[in-house]
Amino acid sequence: MTTPTRRDLANAIRFLAIDAVQAANSGHPGMPMGMADIAEVLWNDYLSHNPNNPGWFNRDRFILSNGHGSMLQYALLHLAGYDLSIDDLRNFRQLESKTPGHPENFMTPGVETTTGPLGQGFANAVGLALAEKLLAQRFNRDGHAIVDHRTWVFMGDGCLMEGISHEAASLAGTWGLGKLVAFWDDNKISIDGNTDGWFTDDTPARFEAYGWNVVRGVDGHDAASIKDAIEQALKSTDRPTLVCCRTTIGFGSPAKAGKESSHGAPLGKDEIVATRAALGWTGGEFEVPAPIAQAWRANDAGQLREAEWNRRLQAYAARFPEDAAEFERRVRGERPAGFVEAADAYIAKLQAEGPTVASRKASQMAIETFAPLLPELVGGSADLAHSNLTLWKGSKSVATDDPNANYIYFGVREFAMSAICNGLELHSGFIPYDATFLVFSDYARNAVRMSALMGAHVIHVYTHDSIGLGEDGPTHQPIEHLASLRYIPHNDVWRPCDAVESAVAWKHAIVRNDGPSCLVFSRQNLPHQHRTAQQVADIERGGYVLKDSVGTPELILIATGSEVGLAMQAAEQLGDTVRVVSMPCTGIFDRQSPEYRESVLPNAVRRRVAIEAATADYWFKYVGLDGVVIGMHGFGASAPAEKLFPHFGFTVERVVEAARSLR
Amino acid sequence: MTTPTRRDLANAIRFLAIDAVQAANSGHPGMPMGMADIAEVLWNDYLSHNPNNPGWFNRDRFILSNGHGSMLQYALLHLAGYDLSIDDLRNFRQLESKTPGHPENFMTPGVETTTGPLGQGFANAVGLALAEKLLAQRFNRDGHAIVDHRTWVFMGDGCLMEGISHEAASLAGTWGLGKLVAFWDDNKISIDGNTDGWFTDDTPARFEAYGWNVVRGVDGHDAASIKDAIEQALKSTDRPTLVCCRTTIGFGSPAKAGKESSHGAPLGKDEIVATRAALGWTGGEFEVPAPIAQAWRANDAGQLREAEWNRRLQAYAARFPEDAAEFERRVRGERPAGFVEAADAYIAKLQAEGPTVASRKASQMAIETFAPLLPELVGGSADLAHSNLTLWKGSKSVATDDPNANYIYFGVREFAMSAICNGLELHSGFIPYDATFLVFSDYARNAVRMSALMGAHVIHVYTHDSIGLGEDGPTHQPIEHLASLRYIPHNDVWRPCDAVESAVAWKHAIVRNDGPSCLVFSRQNLPHQHRTAQQVADIERGGYVLKDSVGTPELILIATGSEVGLAMQAAEQLGDTVRVVSMPCTGIFDRQSPEYRESVLPNAVRRRVAIEAATADYWFKYVGLDGVVIGMHGFGASAPAEKLFPHFGFTVERVVEAARSLR
Repeated sequence: MTTPTRRDLANAIRFLAIDAVQAANSGHPGMPMGMADIAEVLWNDYLSHNPNNPGWFNRDRFILSNGHGSMLQYALLHLAGYDLSIDDLRNFRQLESKTPGHPENFMTPGVETTTGPLGQGFANAVGLALAEKLLAQRFNRDGHAIVDHRTWVFMGDGCLMEGISHEAASLAGTWGLGKLVAFWDDNKISIDGNTDGWFTDDTPARFEAYGWNVVRGVDGHDAASIKDAIEQALKSTDRPTLVCCRTTIGFGSPAKAGKESSHGAPLGKDEIVATRAALGWTGGEFEVPAPIAQAWRANDAGQLREAEWNRRLQAYAARFPEDAAEFERRVRGERPAGFVEAADAYIAKLQAEGPTVASRKASQMAIETFAPLLPELVGGSADLAHSNLTLWKGSKSVATDDPNANYIYFGVREFAMSAICNGLELHSGFIPYDATFLVFSDYARNAVRMSALMGAHVIHVYTHDSIGLGEDGPTHQPIEHLASLRYIPHNDVWRPCDAVESAVAWKHAIVRNDGPSCLVFSRQNLPHQHRTAQQVADIERGGYVLKDSVGTPELILIATGSEVGLAMQAAEQLGDTVRVVSMPCTGIFDRQSPEYRESVLPNAVRRRVAIEAATADYWFKYVGLDGVVIGMHGFGASAPAEKLFPHFGFTVERVVEAARSLR
Repeated sequence: MTTPTRRDLANAIRFLAIDAVQAANSGHPGMPMGMADIAEVLWNDYLSHNPNNPGWFNRDRFILSNGHGSMLQYALLHLAGYDLSIDDLRNFRQLESKTPGHPENFMTPGVETTTGPLGQGFANAVGLALAEKLLAQRFNRDGHAIVDHRTWVFMGDGCLMEGISHEAASLAGTWGLGKLVAFWDDNKISIDGNTDGWFTDDTPARFEAYGWNVVRGVDGHDAASIKDAIEQALKSTDRPTLVCCRTTIGFGSPAKAGKESSHGAPLGKDEIVATRAALGWTGGEFEVPAPIAQAWRANDAGQLREAEWNRRLQAYAARFPEDAAEFERRVRGERPAGFVEAADAYIAKLQAEGPTVASRKASQMAIETFAPLLPELVGGSADLAHSNLTLWKGSKSVATDDPNANYIYFGVREFAMSAICNGLELHSGFIPYDATFLVFSDYARNAVRMSALMGAHVIHVYTHDSIGLGEDGPTHQPIEHLASLRYIPHNDVWRPCDAVESAVAWKHAIVRNDGPSCLVFSRQNLPHQHRTAQQVADIERGGYVLKDSVGTPELILIATGSEVGLAMQAAEQLGDTVRVVSMPCTGIFDRQSPEYRESVLPNAVRRRVAIEAATADYWFKYVGLDGVVIGMHGFGASAPAEKLFPHFGFTVERVVEAARSLR
């Protein structure tokens, strides 16, 4: 073989994908075979990255939104010279391998985000591109563009059918994210077959309606056509670009090209032989001929790129030392010096002053206090700013070019909102937060799950946390949401009982850097609770004794949020043998030592009543078969909140009665 | 006052809305004030309905997708002569009133669906329009159009920002639902203010890209412009129509028109006085001047319409008696005679034959058996037909004009899929089902909640129910989903352990007519379990003793689905003092009598082990503080299923060890 052709280079992707799927006897060869030519042009001619340092700040971000085609990405990473060996590819889809079934950013160097749930990778990409825009606005100076990279995303018909594609594309258009380029794998095949029967959108027209630059009619198997399209994309500086690539799924397979049979199953040994012949591929199984492998290696070029950028950063640091230090702090994901102390001082002050406010108001007070210290805190609400109370004095819309732009008017787009926050976080430089009513966490649910799976440091603010929402009625009153969010692994769900716990929840969510937090706040006022300094400190343990019994408790009342006040009133009536436990974050409490948990909920004390204006069943974990739960057993209703609490049994009398029934 | 003007008629809506929101001191006056003129023209000149009989089959369906404007609908229902009095309007948003904060179809005569969660009403409307199309295809004959009505839907900017609007509009376009007409309340205001900062779509172009007929530039405050638009919509028989109405939110309020301040709060007494003056409204509070009230009454016209249709139906019945009987059965929502007996016979046969298959395969076998008996069973999958196994021999795409069309290729659109199923069910004539991987129930979650809130008889099929999904990895492996779906009130979640339980689950979901069922199936094979006839009958009680101990049990193993086989193997090793309880549907088990529950799970027996390859915490409700749960405590992983079960501790040894630890 002399100099490899572009097709040879692309075929290396194809056969690594074919071989790995065959070896695993599981996976999706069709998409990598279909998008190989596009990927080859993009990676070899345009992608700015450094395989030696997948974490290089100024790299282009490459997102595979159609994540089932993971072998495309693994093949690219291997060929470009990332730390992903042929043996890793041979272990495709095996336990604890670096090559799981879908790309997982926590498993594989060079994978920017975890994809598979369709449409979300695209929305992550919008978040990544927004992050780049905002950091560039904040830090770049004339002649000193230290933040300057693109976000490239591959997406299939499935991503485009999903509703989140609408939400994310609309925002990307509104924000004018010129450095975002999406490639549509227009192959007219989805799992159920030819898409004629269920996907008849004029997608280019749709994206033009969002204000995108659309490059139509690209031959996704012709390098020149692809290059021409990318050049057009590069010229579009104020609008994101959709490159519409006509492709053939399973390209090169004589029997399966253009058919759904190539989508989600190995080609089979005979068909692999036929495909090798059809594409003239001389490499053996998992073998890339040396000239092709050589042509792919991007390590040296990557090192040069990063070195050039390092020089740029040095020049910047020499000229703007404070900005450079701040930039580096933000990229490292560190909080400013003194943040924790300032937060603790604020919390102590709140404890002393004892305001009785709605916890959503307490949340806004916390934002107002912490946000000036944390320019990395960026976020907003899904068109409920004045209900969620997410705006603060320093809020400036990201739709502007203000260097301190930090507020996102997401519109009524909960799912893209949370997926965009995931993208902002993955970029580095931000702690994103979003907000809606707790009940509408449903709309964003899988993106919250993805925050948790990726360990993304994202803060989800959910207000109007129970029937306390009142008149808007059962469509707007969360019941099962608290428990359902708590059951997402690795997700911390806080439901504070007063302003102090609200501030602690915010502090903890900001300091926690390995996963998401859901901060759940009330619409209505919640009474301040008295605490010692030790009790204030124990809030961060997720559950603690708020009012202790004299001697070993005869009965324990456990409550969260608005029901803590109720528990305290009931305890008053029940006498001094009763302990009240406030449990603002069950997940964190569960992670405490057995000794601490036993000190709060002694195993021997079985007379327990849990009170929460939400799904009752959740609380049997803490009260067991001998306890009682005062919770919700059905949907809420439309009425003023002060009518609903007694209507559904949340009264001091009922708690007292339940407690006495255990005697 | 002489003959009222159209504006007078519209103002009746405005002031009823203004007064009710003021009286409740809560609600949304801006939208009713903005859409009153459109509603007036539609209801007085076009809507075919009968206020005396809100359940008249052939009525037009009117859907308020922007449900926060509920007072618009209540005012219309009151004025047209439905059973909704001025006193009902005075009770707006009060406990147990017929006028809750958002329209609830189970509270108010004439409300077709429950709205408020934005975008879903629009998707419901697509389902309603599809139902009309399918029933017309099936039953109408030349000159005998017994199914012939329209679906009208009001929607705001919020509905259009939501992703579900994309999914639903795309399908409506593909299906060519010519009798669907949507009115866009284009007022450029959402809760956060002027939408310029977050909603810049070219919405008419977007809908044209979906194949809709779009009527642009309608003056939503000019009756002639509105009429002209509706006439254009009526001419579009093969494409749904979007009518783009420029409106002013809070129209008529001198200080608040065109501003978000009119959106979600009472106008206030002074502003109401000013608005009365500005619009020349002479009626007092909650008072509609008699000539205006008279002009609105639609009872007589409605009676005539229904009488005419009854004659049509009689002529049809005379000519096509069997079709007429079938039509009436389907509209009544009754199962065909003998269905239950046939189902039970099939279940008995399965129990005798004992196939070991994946429960998703058992689901397909059940569909294959039941669907020929149930032409009302219509549904499909979100592009996973061959994984969910929802296709059967008689499947015919609804995209055709086949009279027996019954299969829906939803594409990758889970949220619209479930909301469309809700619409199909609300129409009458169908038992809809939908399907996706269990993990992607997240995408549809709030629509499942709406099925439950409305008591809609919808069947949600979710396959690939655990880490048993294998190589696709943690993005595709449900963990928290079983518990989260179980916590949706009124939602029955089935996770069968073999083909017999799978068939019972299907039967129960078909027979249950007051709410949704989620049927959760495995990817992998599940061994058949032996049962007596009584045990087979007890499956429908949600939980039952599958293997009993000799004498009072010393230990109870509780399991569902794929873990029942594991429990049975462990019981074998643990000896004959062990009871095994199969718990395919905890919700139904919880609804059994205390005696039955005690007979299955005696309170005195506290040595209990629950086993489910999902969130462990859920099961403490059944094992208490002294039991053990073998479940998942984090996310899954990408690997073959047979590697994952032992990796995560689902082995006979582990169950035996856990059981012995309780001794």
